[in-house]
Amino acid sequence: MDFSHSPKVEAMRARLSAFMAEHVAPADAAWHESAARGVFPEALVDGLKEKAKAEGLWNLFLPGLKDDEPGTRLTNVEYAPLAEIMGRLPWAPEVFNCNAPDTGNMEILHLFATPEQRERWLMPLLNGAIRSGVSITEPDVASSDPTNLETTIVRDGDDYVINGRKWFTTGALHPKFAFTLVMGISNTEPEAPRHERHSFVIVPADAPGLTVVRNLPIMQHFAVEGHCEVRFDDVRVPASNILGEAGAGFAIAQARLGPGRIHHCMRTIGQCELALELMCERALSRSTFGRPLADYANLQDWIAMSRIEIDQARLLNLHAAWTMDTKGNKAARTEVSAIKVAAAQLQTRVIDRAMQVFGAMGLTDDTPLAGLWTWGRALRFIDGPDEVHLRGIARAELKAAGARRQGGG
Amino acid sequence: MDFSHSPKVEAMRARLSAFMAEHVAPADAAWHESAARGVFPEALVDGLKEKAKAEGLWNLFLPGLKDDEPGTRLTNVEYAPLAEIMGRLPWAPEVFNCNAPDTGNMEILHLFATPEQRERWLMPLLNGAIRSGVSITEPDVASSDPTNLETTIVRDGDDYVINGRKWFTTGALHPKFAFTLVMGISNTEPEAPRHERHSFVIVPADAPGLTVVRNLPIMQHFAVEGHCEVRFDDVRVPASNILGEAGAGFAIAQARLGPGRIHHCMRTIGQCELALELMCERALSRSTFGRPLADYANLQDWIAMSRIEIDQARLLNLHAAWTMDTKGNKAARTEVSAIKVAAAQLQTRVIDRAMQVFGAMGLTDDTPLAGLWTWGRALRFIDGPDEVHLRGIARAELKAAGARRQGGG
Amino acid sequence: MDFSHSPKVEAMRARLSAFMAEHVAPADAAWHESAARGVFPEALVDGLKEKAKAEGLWNLFLPGLKDDEPGTRLTNVEYAPLAEIMGRLPWAPEVFNCNAPDTGNMEILHLFATPEQRERWLMPLLNGAIRSGVSITEPDVASSDPTNLETTIVRDGDDYVINGRKWFTTGALHPKFAFTLVMGISNTEPEAPRHERHSFVIVPADAPGLTVVRNLPIMQHFAVEGHCEVRFDDVRVPASNILGEAGAGFAIAQARLGPGRIHHCMRTIGQCELALELMCERALSRSTFGRPLADYANLQDWIAMSRIEIDQARLLNLHAAWTMDTKGNKAARTEVSAIKVAAAQLQTRVIDRAMQVFGAMGLTDDTPLAGLWTWGRALRFIDGPDEVHLRGIARAELKAAGARRQGGG
Amino acid sequence: MDFSHSPKVEAMRARLSAFMAEHVAPADAAWHESAARGVFPEALVDGLKEKAKAEGLWNLFLPGLKDDEPGTRLTNVEYAPLAEIMGRLPWAPEVFNCNAPDTGNMEILHLFATPEQRERWLMPLLNGAIRSGVSITEPDVASSDPTNLETTIVRDGDDYVINGRKWFTTGALHPKFAFTLVMGISNTEPEAPRHERHSFVIVPADAPGLTVVRNLPIMQHFAVEGHCEVRFDDVRVPASNILGEAGAGFAIAQARLGPGRIHHCMRTIGQCELALELMCERALSRSTFGRPLADYANLQDWIAMSRIEIDQARLLNLHAAWTMDTKGNKAARTEVSAIKVAAAQLQTRVIDRAMQVFGAMGLTDDTPLAGLWTWGRALRFIDGPDEVHLRGIARAELKAAGARRQGGG
Repeated sequence: MDFSHSPKVEAMRARLSAFMAEHVAPADAAWHESAARGVFPEALVDGLKEKAKAEGLWNLFLPGLKDDEPGTRLTNVEYAPLAEIMGRLPWAPEVFNCNAPDTGNMEILHLFATPEQRERWLMPLLNGAIRSGVSITEPDVASSDPTNLETTIVRDGDDYVINGRKWFTTGALHPKFAFTLVMGISNTEPEAPRHERHSFVIVPADAPGLTVVRNLPIMQHFAVEGHCEVRFDDVRVPASNILGEAGAGFAIAQARLGPGRIHHCMRTIGQCELALELMCERALSRSTFGRPLADYANLQDWIAMSRIEIDQARLLNLHAAWTMDTKGNKAARTEVSAIKVAAAQLQTRVIDRAMQVFGAMGLTDDTPLAGLWTWGRALRFIDGPDEVHLRGIARAELKAAGARRQGGG
Repeated sequence: MDFSHSPKVEAMRARLSAFMAEHVAPADAAWHESAARGVFPEALVDGLKEKAKAEGLWNLFLPGLKDDEPGTRLTNVEYAPLAEIMGRLPWAPEVFNCNAPDTGNMEILHLFATPEQRERWLMPLLNGAIRSGVSITEPDVASSDPTNLETTIVRDGDDYVINGRKWFTTGALHPKFAFTLVMGISNTEPEAPRHERHSFVIVPADAPGLTVVRNLPIMQHFAVEGHCEVRFDDVRVPASNILGEAGAGFAIAQARLGPGRIHHCMRTIGQCELALELMCERALSRSTFGRPLADYANLQDWIAMSRIEIDQARLLNLHAAWTMDTKGNKAARTEVSAIKVAAAQLQTRVIDRAMQVFGAMGLTDDTPLAGLWTWGRALRFIDGPDEVHLRGIARAELKAAGARRQGGG
Repeated sequence: MDFSHSPKVEAMRARLSAFMAEHVAPADAAWHESAARGVFPEALVDGLKEKAKAEGLWNLFLPGLKDDEPGTRLTNVEYAPLAEIMGRLPWAPEVFNCNAPDTGNMEILHLFATPEQRERWLMPLLNGAIRSGVSITEPDVASSDPTNLETTIVRDGDDYVINGRKWFTTGALHPKFAFTLVMGISNTEPEAPRHERHSFVIVPADAPGLTVVRNLPIMQHFAVEGHCEVRFDDVRVPASNILGEAGAGFAIAQARLGPGRIHHCMRTIGQCELALELMCERALSRSTFGRPLADYANLQDWIAMSRIEIDQARLLNLHAAWTMDTKGNKAARTEVSAIKVAAAQLQTRVIDRAMQVFGAMGLTDDTPLAGLWTWGRALRFIDGPDEVHLRGIARAELKAAGARRQGGG
Repeated sequence: MDFSHSPKVEAMRARLSAFMAEHVAPADAAWHESAARGVFPEALVDGLKEKAKAEGLWNLFLPGLKDDEPGTRLTNVEYAPLAEIMGRLPWAPEVFNCNAPDTGNMEILHLFATPEQRERWLMPLLNGAIRSGVSITEPDVASSDPTNLETTIVRDGDDYVINGRKWFTTGALHPKFAFTLVMGISNTEPEAPRHERHSFVIVPADAPGLTVVRNLPIMQHFAVEGHCEVRFDDVRVPASNILGEAGAGFAIAQARLGPGRIHHCMRTIGQCELALELMCERALSRSTFGRPLADYANLQDWIAMSRIEIDQARLLNLHAAWTMDTKGNKAARTEVSAIKVAAAQLQTRVIDRAMQVFGAMGLTDDTPLAGLWTWGRALRFIDGPDEVHLRGIARAELKAAGARRQGGG
């Protein structure tokens, strides 16, 4: 058992922190100023991306990179502390081509794309030339149970024809938005097994019939790159746009979710550390009733509990990453669910405390806290609501208990 | 002991609910559509105000109305269930001239205004012809301890000259914004008692040197009427604009806060009832894994706990109102603090559960929940942070315990 | 709406408090000393009972007393503040003939007993000459769903024959233990409706075949009067010992539980007040790191939250009692469930805080806290576990929501 | 980073589990039967100790064992998973000579004993021939701040004379109880530095003037080996019985607490795993309202949250142990405080859930849960109350924040 990071990782951390301090943090105000005007600051981000790529801080998240693919081959455990650093500024991961939902999309294209698909869609993504979306969840059904999904992907000659309504397609308003991966029912035979009826297809952003209906606010915040409602009206794509085999939708969705989920969690840890830092600094700088806030035992309890909870979550996250690295994503399934639940709840809890220490300022945009809380609240749904993950963990425990009882009988 | 409302109150409830259903609810979409464009829908609201006044649903909150003042004389206990009904639509209270911060301002003008101030500022407020602000909290100091306030109100001949920076002046962007009540230091003698150094002055909205610096977002939401940062640079008002006596600032602030605080709490109860209704209806209409959400025991626990907690808070609120009615605002001080803390925490807790039942939709503006949660979070600071109120309650308990120990010795 | 107690109740409170201070509290050490030796202090309690009866502080809990029955006719709302006072010493209610499970038994005998049963069993109970038990819950099945109960009560000629195992029969070791009310299946026809198969019979303590198997510890504490496991092996009682009609078991159990449940809750409030008092006094008398504990903001938060939560629970309790008084026990069913859940959770929460303020002493028997916590933990099961009550409350909310949806359609 | 245990540790786990199953678990009923009669089952335990020593499962906790000392040299990280296994039966650690408070005493004797003290007191402890106590906390002062301690240890010629009252001296009723380590003031000069006034002395169990006043119940449970109140009336020991130097009491207390604290935490993890197993098995075997308990989503949430929380605590514990192993006990101070707080709170939380799943049976001694909960509650005080540890963690965070602010200025 060894809790230390390798010298290689320590060196990467130092380089990444330096890059963040030197290049990204100074651009933060400009990024937000543009976003507040509803304009994605593409030139600013493109400039930083060039720099990051030049310094080898690129595609850090994808362990299986091939020789012709740009990026640094890191295990999940190695990537975790780096994702923490990037996560401190919510828009920073894109600078390093490590942002959702593109990382998840790159992973499944990596696993399932044909050579043609790889050339056309994956390579530009790996190079940061385009952005992509993923369209799974639907407004009309409880999508946490994906068998409920109703969008249809129907074979018609050499094409697939897509009809349906999706929402929370992140990135659909990004200037580089090039395609989205759509999940839907491709086999409508009544007797088809429920988990083999769905497929994924690649739908180009400019496909006729694809409409971005609206940008959905998340807790009253409209993201500049969009979390969009999208409509597909008789959208037609060539049959070669299907990902993997017809009916493989569930398997692909599962493959996508492991790494993507823990990347969010890693960034959460970084954001909670930031909130804890801010909370402590504020507590030292303000006084009420003749004493610095830092002197009040209730605030001290919040600070200490935040430290304890963050450290626990970080370790759980690293352990899940290590399990993925050593035993595979499938074996790590309940581990990933566990950190997914723990991290999202941690984020709202720690940041809520930090806001309280800041007083009313904590509600404004004079600190990053309101934005980070909102994102934490969204994480309780992104990649599945808490309840679905808790259910999965419980079923695994109960299954083991059943086996013990059987064995005992 | 009698928990029933009087027939008079029951009749008012019925009339108010009918008015809300017939006139206010149908205007909700238009109100929000205008607000989203940054334009306060003045004509719409003015029309509804005329109707409400005509029906005698006006100034329901002010028990001590005089004969020449418009409105219905109701006790706090009688007002509580009506405020609950109005609170279900956050913008509705203005229709009945029962909105913050004007209700609080009307109360202290009622108590402290000279006949001239009454004519000039209170009567138009009571008539709904103007809106007002209150400028107490400051960005540069921990304002939960008001002795920290730094804005100065200095006598200079026949004038007072105001300098300082305030924030969270609600209403400063409302088209009818006419004045704000500013609290600051008027006695800078070092030996002046700490609680007799502050005064309130009435500052007209068009006073030279008064600048609305910016509208502050609350959890990323910009209210159309504004929660504003305001700067006072050598703002000059006639000495007759002082409220009460010089040095009476603390006494006035205290007088203001009792009723204002529980009005917020009453509206919270209504908003939590709404959230509980929505949560139940959603649970009945969605299914996952073959069962309606309403069938899941964890959701049932959330629903039941919400019912228990809302009922407890309503009773605590009514009890505080009854104490104010029968023993005076001062005697009800810790009671008001208690419901102030309980209600704000209730609002975020109940609404968080409701959002979770709605899935990702709960984060969007397709339900009122995100807006109501945000307001609940703000209530944990408005009229003083939780911690200051808890401290006051604890000190009262400890004082009683000290007296018992003394007596026992 | 009126939150004040009537002068009559205020006078009763004063008299009861005086009696507690003068007669009961001074006997507390002796009571516990005897109980610790496993001997119920019968003479001590009998002496106090005589005094209480003489002062008219007797059977305060039973609103419907008839002319020949001893005791003071009080409504539930009137009884509540008195039960609070008695509850401060857990053994005190027996002094006033207001202790569980006898109060509940007196209520259902009152409602369902034949004249003969009344004479033989109810009158001695009302006079405090005997004690009784109630045997519903069973070790072998999840008794929170009473259709699971398996004990049989089979008609055999002029007798009923009882077979089965019960536990948590409180009072079975009390020297005055005279009978227990046993619930079981009397109709074993497979097609009998599930809620009409059970009956109650009166089983005398000395019935052959009735065995007290063991006294069950509750959180490692053995109550001197016993929470017992009891076995019925071919126990035979005359058919006239049946309570109400055969098959009426569910209806009787329901009738029993309303008042009995809120009596526990009332006593909880008193015990929580006591814990809060002790916590405050301790906080004033101890210092760490140069400051009295009372000065620490986290302890202040615990104190204040305890005050808020106790006041909310008291009001909910009074409201439930008022609903029972004015609308009947059945109409108050979800109200009673609500306070049942809230009170038991309150008791463990408030007392846990108090224990923490006392440091390790809080774990010992140098304070009443450990005993009170334990009782609070037991209350989360007594008269049904939290989860069953929450389920009932949720179903009522969902039913109302369903009706609204229907109406809206 | 590597989360796997070494093959050596895996082998030890297997051997220890087998020993527990084969030898210890079958003796559990007999151990408790004797303890319930107030008789420590010495022969039973001695027999098991011989077996364990023979199998090399002895003194697993002490990394620095010397050549002539019996036991297996293991690091803290290696010991952790073994302590988890032992912890599942609370009395089992003594079988392996790994029980509190002797482990802590062995550690400080190891560090501070003179050769004579080593021979006379440490070697018999290492051999399991005697038991020892530690007497720090006092009933009359808030001992969580040790500068409050009032017991005096005064030099008088060649002796020290001890006067004072201590409590929670664990083991004082054990038949092998041979001595206790007493902390008190040895330097009463008013100007002596507050942290250099205290010393430790070894007081033999049979020293005249040493009285075991009473066994203190913990949550109404009297441990058979005793958590005792002890009085020292002019107890006289030779000056050579002092541990380390006069005035070194604080340093010694600190040295003692690191390992001792995390041993408790390790055992907590094992006990929580046991509770989770029991909870799952019970949920599978009981039904209410036509469904197994395992089917209810609220129970599933409890199970899943318990899994998440246990895993987080285990990782935090291992990380603290690893920090002690690689950086020293002092460097691990806040890490140890963190797991100390997290583990005790975990134990009461997880076991409370398990009790709830068991229904009323969870309160009895038919499961180990009531006993484990009680021990968890005590752990919130043992080795310092939560609040003192949280304060220490917060101060470390604030210190770091202060340094950042300084650096930033």
